[in-house]
Amino acid sequence: MSETPDTAATTSTSTRYDRGLALLQEVSGDPVPAVLSSLADIAPDLARYTIEFGYGDIYHRPGLSLRQRQLINIAALTALGTAAPQLRFHINGALNVGVTPREIVETIIHMLVYAGVPAALNGMTVAREVFAERPSPEQTPLGDLARSQVRPAQTSEDRYRRGLAALKEIDGHAGEQVVAALQDIAPDLGRYIIEFSFGDIYSRTGLTLKERELASVAACTALGTAAPQLRVHIHGLLNVGGSREEVVETITHLTGYAGFPAALNGITAAREVFAQRDADPQTAGR
Amino acid sequence: MSETPDTAATTSTSTRYDRGLALLQEVSGDPVPAVLSSLADIAPDLARYTIEFGYGDIYHRPGLSLRQRQLINIAALTALGTAAPQLRFHINGALNVGVTPREIVETIIHMLVYAGVPAALNGMTVAREVFAERPSPEQTPLGDLARSQVRPAQTSEDRYRRGLAALKEIDGHAGEQVVAALQDIAPDLGRYIIEFSFGDIYSRTGLTLKERELASVAACTALGTAAPQLRVHIHGLLNVGGSREEVVETITHLTGYAGFPAALNGITAAREVFAQRDADPQTAGR
Amino acid sequence: MSETPDTAATTSTSTRYDRGLALLQEVSGDPVPAVLSSLADIAPDLARYTIEFGYGDIYHRPGLSLRQRQLINIAALTALGTAAPQLRFHINGALNVGVTPREIVETIIHMLVYAGVPAALNGMTVAREVFAERPSPEQTPLGDLARSQVRPAQTSEDRYRRGLAALKEIDGHAGEQVVAALQDIAPDLGRYIIEFSFGDIYSRTGLTLKERELASVAACTALGTAAPQLRVHIHGLLNVGGSREEVVETITHLTGYAGFPAALNGITAAREVFAQRDADPQTAGR
Repeated sequence: MSETPDTAATTSTSTRYDRGLALLQEVSGDPVPAVLSSLADIAPDLARYTIEFGYGDIYHRPGLSLRQRQLINIAALTALGTAAPQLRFHINGALNVGVTPREIVETIIHMLVYAGVPAALNGMTVAREVFAERPSPEQTPLGDLARSQVRPAQTSEDRYRRGLAALKEIDGHAGEQVVAALQDIAPDLGRYIIEFSFGDIYSRTGLTLKERELASVAACTALGTAAPQLRVHIHGLLNVGGSREEVVETITHLTGYAGFPAALNGITAAREVFAQRDADPQTAGR
Repeated sequence: MSETPDTAATTSTSTRYDRGLALLQEVSGDPVPAVLSSLADIAPDLARYTIEFGYGDIYHRPGLSLRQRQLINIAALTALGTAAPQLRFHINGALNVGVTPREIVETIIHMLVYAGVPAALNGMTVAREVFAERPSPEQTPLGDLARSQVRPAQTSEDRYRRGLAALKEIDGHAGEQVVAALQDIAPDLGRYIIEFSFGDIYSRTGLTLKERELASVAACTALGTAAPQLRVHIHGLLNVGGSREEVVETITHLTGYAGFPAALNGITAAREVFAQRDADPQTAGR
Repeated sequence: MSETPDTAATTSTSTRYDRGLALLQEVSGDPVPAVLSSLADIAPDLARYTIEFGYGDIYHRPGLSLRQRQLINIAALTALGTAAPQLRFHINGALNVGVTPREIVETIIHMLVYAGVPAALNGMTVAREVFAERPSPEQTPLGDLARSQVRPAQTSEDRYRRGLAALKEIDGHAGEQVVAALQDIAPDLGRYIIEFSFGDIYSRTGLTLKERELASVAACTALGTAAPQLRVHIHGLLNVGGSREEVVETITHLTGYAGFPAALNGITAAREVFAQRDADPQTAGR
C-alpha cells in the first residue's frame, strides 16, 4: 500500500473538478448547478467534494452508462426514503440523460419489493412533482403512464407459474432456496415472493431484467439491512447478463449516495458470491 | 415447489382486488381511497398492487385483528421515521377501526425504547395533526391525553424493582442475559434497560403487554438493524401469550411496510427462536 | 441482578426531572423548552421521559462534555436523515453551548464518508436555516464559512500520500486491512478510502482527530448498518487519544437518539474491540 498509486490516481484535482462539473452540468441540465450556489455561503467545500468526488471520480468511471447510474440512484434513494430533494434532482437528471418517464415509474414500482409500499408511494409523489414541473410536457407524456402496463386479471395460479419461471431465470438456486426454506415456518411469505415479487413485479415490462437486478442490488446495498438478499441479487444480476465488473461498479457508485460503510459491506457480499461461483460454477450459475 | 399451489393461492386477481378495496375502504373511511386518485395519472399499477397485495393478500389474512395490524403499522412507521404520509394515514385508519387515541399515543411512546426520542417526537407530531383534523373532536378526547398516565414520582430504586419484575415476566432469561452481559462494560446501560425500558415504559398502562410486544417485534423487524433484540422480543411475545402464528403473521404483515428483505430477515430470527424453544422449552420459556 | 442498585440509581425521579430540565434549558436557551408546551395536550409523559431520561439520566452523565455531546448528536442525526426537527434543535443547542458554526459545518461534511452526499446536503440545509434565523448574526459569521478550508488543488498522488499517513495515524492496522482486502475485487474503492475519506476529509482542519472519531463512532452506532466500520473507528478513537470510557459513553449517549437496540449493538462492537486490544495490545494499538 505504500507504492505510488496507478495512473488514474495521479489525475490532478483541477481535472477532477473540471470533468466532474461537466458531468454535473449534463445531468442537471444547468450550467450553474444549484449545489454550487446554495452552498457558497456556508460550505463551499461540500459543493467541491460533491463535484470532485461524486462526479469527477465516481460518475466519471466507465463500467456503467449515465442511464444506468441514474436508474441506480432512483432505486437507492427511493428505497432509503431519507433523501427526497436528491431523489427529485436525480429523477430530473434521469430525464436529462434519456431515461423515459415509464422507466422511472417502473424503477419506483420495483422498489415495492425491497422497501415496501410507503417507500414506493413517497418516491412516486416526487416523480409526479418532477413530471408536472418539466418545461416541455411532451417530454413526459403522462397519458402513456395512466394505462396499466400489465396483462389483465388472472388467477393466482397463473401468477404463481409465471413467478416461478421468472424466479428460476433470475435467481436460480439461490432464490429457490429462499422460498424452500420458508415452507416450514411461513409458507405464505414464500408464496408471495413467487406470486407478487416475481409473478407481478419482475414479470412487468418497461425495464430489462438486467436493469431490474441493477436496481435490486442498488437498493439492498443502500439499505444496508439486506445482506442475504443482496447476495441473492448479485447472483441474479450475474445470471441475467450482468458482469462482475458491473456488480462492483454498482456498489462503488453507491459510495456517494449511502456512504462508504454501505459500499464496503456491499463489496463483502460480492466477494462471497464471486467465491461461491468460482467454487461451484454449475450450481451457483443456475 | 413445482406443484400447484394451495387453495388460497388459486384466488383470482379480481377477488383479491375486490376484497382488498373493501378493506382499504374500511380502514381509510373513504369510498374512493386517495391512493387510487393520486396515482391514476402516473402509476395506476402501483395503486392496484397496494390494493391487491397490501390489502387483498396481507391485510385480508386471519391471524391478527385489524386493530392489531394498525397498532403494528403505527409502531413500524414511527420507528422507521421515513414515512410520515403513511403514518398519518394509518393513525387515521387506526381510529377508524376502533383503536383509541390513548392506544395510539402509547404505541408511539413505546417506540422511545426502539428508535429513540426523535422518532417518538416526530411520530407524536403526526398524531397531533391527525387528532386535530378529525371531524368529530369527541372521537379524540385530548383532555384525557393531557393527564400523565403513570404513577407519580418515585425513587430510582422503585423503578428498578418494578422494571426487574416486568423484565422477568416479559423477556425471561433472554432479557436478563442482555442486562447481565453489560455488567463488565456498560453497567449503566443495563440499568437504563431495567429502570427506563421496563420500569417506566413497559410498566405503563394503556396497552396490554401482548400489544407492547407486538409493537416491539414490528419495530425491530421494520428497522432491520436489531436482530438480537428482535429475537429477545419474539421470545417476549411468546412469553406474554402470543402464539407462533402471531409472530409469523406480524412479520409477514410488514412485507407491505418495509419490504421483503425486512420480512425475510425477521423470519430468520423467528426460526432461530422457535428452534431454541423446541430444544429447551424450560429455559427459553422463562 | 436482584441486589439494590448503586447509589446513583437511588436518585429520586424529581431530582432527575429537575437536573434534566436545567440541562435542557441550557441547551435550548429557553426557560420553557418547546417540547413541554408542544406535548402538553397529547403526551405529557413523552415530554417528561425526554427530560428525565434523555437529559436527567443521559446528558447529565460525566464522561463527555456538553460540546462533545452536541457534536455527537449532529453527526448521528445527519447520518440518520430521519430527524430534521431534532437536528435543527441540536444545531441551535450546539451554538448555545459554545460549538462554533465552523465546527458544525465540519461535522456535517464529515458525514459524507459515513452516510453519503444526500445526508450531508440535507444536514447542511438545516444548518443554513438555523444560522440564518439566529438573533445575533455576529454569533454565526458566515463570512468565514464561505472560504474553502482546505489547501488548494493538488495531484491525486498528494492526496494519496496525505490520506495514507492519516489512515495509519487514525485507524492503524484495522484501516489498512480494510483497504488491502479490497485489492482483489474493488481496488478503486480502496483508493477512494485513502484519497477521499482520509486524504480529503480526515485531513481537514476545524475538528480535532478525536472529535472526528467521536463523530464516526456516533454515526456508525446510530445507523446500525455499519458494524465492521464501527469496530474500525472504535479502534480509531482509542488510537487518537479517546478512552474506553469515552467509547462506552458515546454509545450510551445514543440510546436517546437511536434507541436501545442501536446502543446495545454498539456495545457489542465495543466489547469485541476491547477484547482484541487486550489480547494483542501491540497490533491492535497501531
